[in-house]
This record gives sequence, structure tokens and C-alpha cells, in this order.
Amino acid sequence: MTRDADRHRIEALRRMTERRLRIPPSGVLARDLREGCRYMLAGGGKRIRSTLVLLSCQTVGGTAGAAADAAAAVELMHNFTLVHDDVMDNAEERRGRPTVHRKWDLNSALLVGDVLLGAAYERLMRTRTPSHRALVRVFTRGLLDVCDGQALDLEFARRTDVSVREYFRMIGKKTGCLIATATELGGIIGGGTQAEIRALRLFGLRLGRAFQIQDDLLDVVADPRDFGKTVGGDILEGKRTFLLLTARERTRGSDRSRIEQVLRSEAARRKGKDAAGRVTREGRGLVDAVREIYDRNGVLDDARRLVRRNTAEALRQLGSLRNNVARRSLARLAEDLVTRAS
Amino acid sequence: MTRDADRHRIEALRRMTERRLRIPPSGVLARDLREGCRYMLAGGGKRIRSTLVLLSCQTVGGTAGAAADAAAAVELMHNFTLVHDDVMDNAEERRGRPTVHRKWDLNSALLVGDVLLGAAYERLMRTRTPSHRALVRVFTRGLLDVCDGQALDLEFARRTDVSVREYFRMIGKKTGCLIATATELGGIIGGGTQAEIRALRLFGLRLGRAFQIQDDLLDVVADPRDFGKTVGGDILEGKRTFLLLTARERTRGSDRSRIEQVLRSEAARRKGKDAAGRVTREGRGLVDAVREIYDRNGVLDDARRLVRRNTAEALRQLGSLRNNVARRSLARLAEDLVTRAS
Repeated sequence: MTRDADRHRIEALRRMTERRLRIPPSGVLARDLREGCRYMLAGGGKRIRSTLVLLSCQTVGGTAGAAADAAAAVELMHNFTLVHDDVMDNAEERRGRPTVHRKWDLNSALLVGDVLLGAAYERLMRTRTPSHRALVRVFTRGLLDVCDGQALDLEFARRTDVSVREYFRMIGKKTGCLIATATELGGIIGGGTQAEIRALRLFGLRLGRAFQIQDDLLDVVADPRDFGKTVGGDILEGKRTFLLLTARERTRGSDRSRIEQVLRSEAARRKGKDAAGRVTREGRGLVDAVREIYDRNGVLDDARRLVRRNTAEALRQLGSLRNNVARRSLARLAEDLVTRAS
Repeated sequence: MTRDADRHRIEALRRMTERRLRIPPSGVLARDLREGCRYMLAGGGKRIRSTLVLLSCQTVGGTAGAAADAAAAVELMHNFTLVHDDVMDNAEERRGRPTVHRKWDLNSALLVGDVLLGAAYERLMRTRTPSHRALVRVFTRGLLDVCDGQALDLEFARRTDVSVREYFRMIGKKTGCLIATATELGGIIGGGTQAEIRALRLFGLRLGRAFQIQDDLLDVVADPRDFGKTVGGDILEGKRTFLLLTARERTRGSDRSRIEQVLRSEAARRKGKDAAGRVTREGRGLVDAVREIYDRNGVLDDARRLVRRNTAEALRQLGSLRNNVARRSLARLAEDLVTRAS
């Protein structure tokens, strides 16, 4: 019952952001640009980051309405990163539809991303608060961190000797910082104390880490029927995940050779998928073999433990905040995120 | 003597910005990203936009120091647009050096652009002012306008029926708005009155228009020895300039056919340059023929008249400002810009 009430509240907040994202950036004349932005924003998504802004604001005593523009701004920035990341990763699809650079072209994707970022700052400035400077600083710090995280991710893709420690630094920037930006902004707008804002930021960072490791884990343990993507897709692409990098540090002999093979991704990819992008029998064999290596070397257990530990640390941060309905919803959102099946 | 004093003052302001651009964005870990930003910022450039911020601030009674961070921010945003525009235009060189996407790759150019924009907002927020909200709004409006202008430019490149009126709208956004953002920001930081800020913005818009038409004009009338680029390069690329679009509206018969040929750029480009990018005899012939059409149809005279008229209108806006040394330097900067030879 309570669980349902929390989820209804979260869904209502999601719709609150959705309404604000329907409005295209004002004053933009070029038709392609308007259409590209609308296409991207209409693609759905869970709107987790904006919901975190709203709940964080509420939990320190503010209203969701006060944080609504900042929430939409964070979602706009998130969509900016998705458009540009899809170009860099050469991604074909996003949320089951062609990516912007595939539906239009590279130039459109570049500009759509840039305009979404501009629209994000424009939205952010609509917030009624005496602390616009603080908002812009936190927001911009988030932007720079996300770009840096993406640059590290691209750098790591070219290296086969990435350490687990480096991986944590990268996902902290690429995933954690934007979630922490969301919770921190909510805390500032809600008029939270310094200690509350700090707790919300740490909550976001821990949650981001748990979320990313869960993402890595799902790639190999998800039920193919629930999972929206190809199970083992990360392995076939040689993606540097917590699992792969931990296995690299922990294995020797033939297991290690197999892991190194995945790290030299090109070879694995070519044999693992056919021309149409379907996983081949060889590909399935590789995924099964690597999953077995992960399992036998305790990598999957380690990942599960880290998801639990980081979630617990995130929830502990909430303990220092006022006990109210919003705080309970924050906890619910966090728990749902790290126990999700897709 | 006064003229020299003005130019020395402008040069001192340029160096003031230069110092601030030497500092890389803080907290960025990825090496490629730091290097790419430094490379771009070390490439020189006249730093016109930042100097306009500083002089605009001074002319309404503020100090250059108060506007120094905003000036650097505008220059950072300008460099962000250059990196992304070079990708979109497939440009090989910028300021005599390989473009970022050529020296590194597309992904690096995307991220370097994004980070320069983030660094711009970070810089802007260092400004000491009670009006951060106003600064961010003006700055973001400038960003959205520049993106929109670039999108229109790309759209126009695919159309052969672009009108001169559409051209003015496009350059207003792509060139004028960022210059107007610079002068408006200076006016706000300097504590100018609403009327002064408005005059500075209009000064920027008019100056931007004069500047762009002068740019279009130089392509065909510049002395090859002073001009840093290929004379007639715009014609060989089929670029939609004031000259080309005016000629399209004004000519008939064989002149019109020749102009249409330039507008269908592909053909002109292939024959006009050889594999190494050098202009061929055919290319030179085309440039000469088109220049002659421009001349015979009064297009060059029209362009010169428009440069003069817009410059005069820009200078008239200055007339409503306080008469001081900074105002005189603003006028000098404007006059030097629109009488330049390269």
C-alpha cells in the first residue's frame, strides 16, 4: 500500500517534468533544429534525474513546483549528453528508435545537442530563488564532469590496461555526478541546510555508483525476456565494465587470455555478431564462457555486494534528513533502481 | 596619435583576456580533453568579442577588471562554436593550423566544444555582480541564437532559393547576436542604465551585420597578398553570401545561369579546385566571371553601401552613451573592423 503510494507520487512527479519538456526552445527558427529537439524529448525515458531534483527539494522542506524548472533543466542536460554520446559511440538506436544522427545526420545531432544544453540553462534560470549563482555553478560543474567522464570512457576504450580504480573514477564522473547534481540542486532550491545539501549530494553519488554497477551486472544476468537490450552486449562490444575490469585483475592463465580477448574488442565484435547485428553462435559461446569466468572468480558476487553496499550508503545519507513522505519516496526510487530487471 | 593610443588600449585589453584563457578548465582529468582545449585557445584570434565586453563595461562607467571573467566567457563560447562549426563545415584549417577534429578526431572535437562551453559558464559565474541571473540569461540567449544561425546556414546550403532577407536573419543570429551578447554583458556588468544597455546591444547587432557583409565583400575584392584565405573561396564553395544572394535576385539570362551554377555548388567546387585543394584555371575563371557579374550589377557597390550604413548606425548608437575614452576606443574598434583588409 505504502509502496504503491510512493510509486504513484513518483509517477506524478515524472508527469510534471514531462509537461515542461514538451515546450520547444523559444525563438529557434530552424525547423530541423526544433524537430530534432522535440523528437529527442518525446522519446520517453524514466526521468529519474528530474524526479530526484523534485523529491530532494521536497525532502528539505521545499515544494515540487519550486524545483520544476530545475528538474526539467537537468533532464534537458541529460538528453544533451545522450545525443552527443550516441554520435561518439556510433549508436544506432536509443529507447527503441533511431538515434538523432541516424534519423537526420551528424550536423543535426551536434546542433540538437548544443541547443538542448542551451535550453537547459534557459530553463534553469526560470527558477525563483535568490541563489541563481549557486544553481549555475552546480549545474555547470555537472556538465564538465559528464564531459570528462565521457572523455575518460573513450580513452579507456583504446586501452586494455584500465584498472578498477580508474573505472570508478570514470563512472563517478559520467553517471554519479549528474545524479548528484540533481539531488544537490533540489536541496539548494528547497532551502536545505549545508549539511542537508551535502547529504543529498553524497546520496546521489552513491546511488549513481550502485546504479552503474547494477547496469553492468544486468548485461550478463538479466532475463532475456525482460531485458530491452542484447544480453551480453557489453561483452560483445568489449565494453569496460566493472565485471570485465575486475576479471582482468583477478584471473590468470586461460581465463585471463579470454578476458584479454574481450578487451581487444575488435576481434570479439566481428565474430560475435553477423552483418545484420544479430548475435552469432560464436558470440553466444563467448558470452557464456565469459559469464562462467565471472561467476567462477566471484566477480558477480562482488558486483552484487557493491550494489548493496553503495545502496546502503546512499540510504544512510537519507537518514540524516528530515523524516517525511518525500524522503520515503527517495528511498523507494533508489531501491527500485538498483533492483530493476531492465 | 589618438588613433595609436586607442589601438594600444585595445591591445592591452586583448592581453587581459589572453591571460585568462591560458588556464585550462579546472577538474578535468582526461588528458586529450585538456590538450584539445589548450590547443584551441592558444590558436590566437583577434579576441574582438572579449574586447567589446571590456570596452562596453568601461564606457558605462565600470572597470575592465569587473568584466574580465565575462569577457573570457564570451571568447570561450566563441571558441566552442568554432570547434563545432568546423566539424559541421568539414573545415581543414583554422587560423593556419589543423582543426581540432583533424588533429584529433570527431569525438574529441565534440567533447572539446562541449567542455569549452562548460568552461564559459564557469568563467561567467566568477563575475562579481548582483545580477548573475541577467548575465546567464543574456549569455544563454546568445548561445541559442548562434546555434540557430548555424542551423539556418546549413539549411540554406541545401537550398538554391535563399532570399537576401533570409540571409540577414541568418547572419543576425550567427554573427550579430554573439557580438550583441558581448556588448550587452559589458553594459550590465558596468551598471549601465536600461537605455545604455539597449544602445550597446543595438551597436553590437549593427556592427555584426557590417562585419559580416565586409567579410563577404573581402572574399572577392581582397588583395591576395594581404588576404589569409583563397580569394574567391566563397564562390568556389557556393557559399550563400550577401553578394551571391543579391546577384541571384537581381540578374536574368546568362548572368543568372552562372549564379545558379555557383548555387549548385557541387559542380563548381569539383572543377574549381584540384585534388590538393589548389584553385584550378577553371576555378579562377569562374571567380573572375562572377566578380564581373557582381560589379556590373551593382552588387559590390550595394555591399559597400550596406557596410557603411550599418557602421554608421552602430556608431550612432554610441552617440547616446557617455563620451569617454572607452567609447572612443569602441568606435575605433568598429571602424578598424569594417575597413580591414583581411
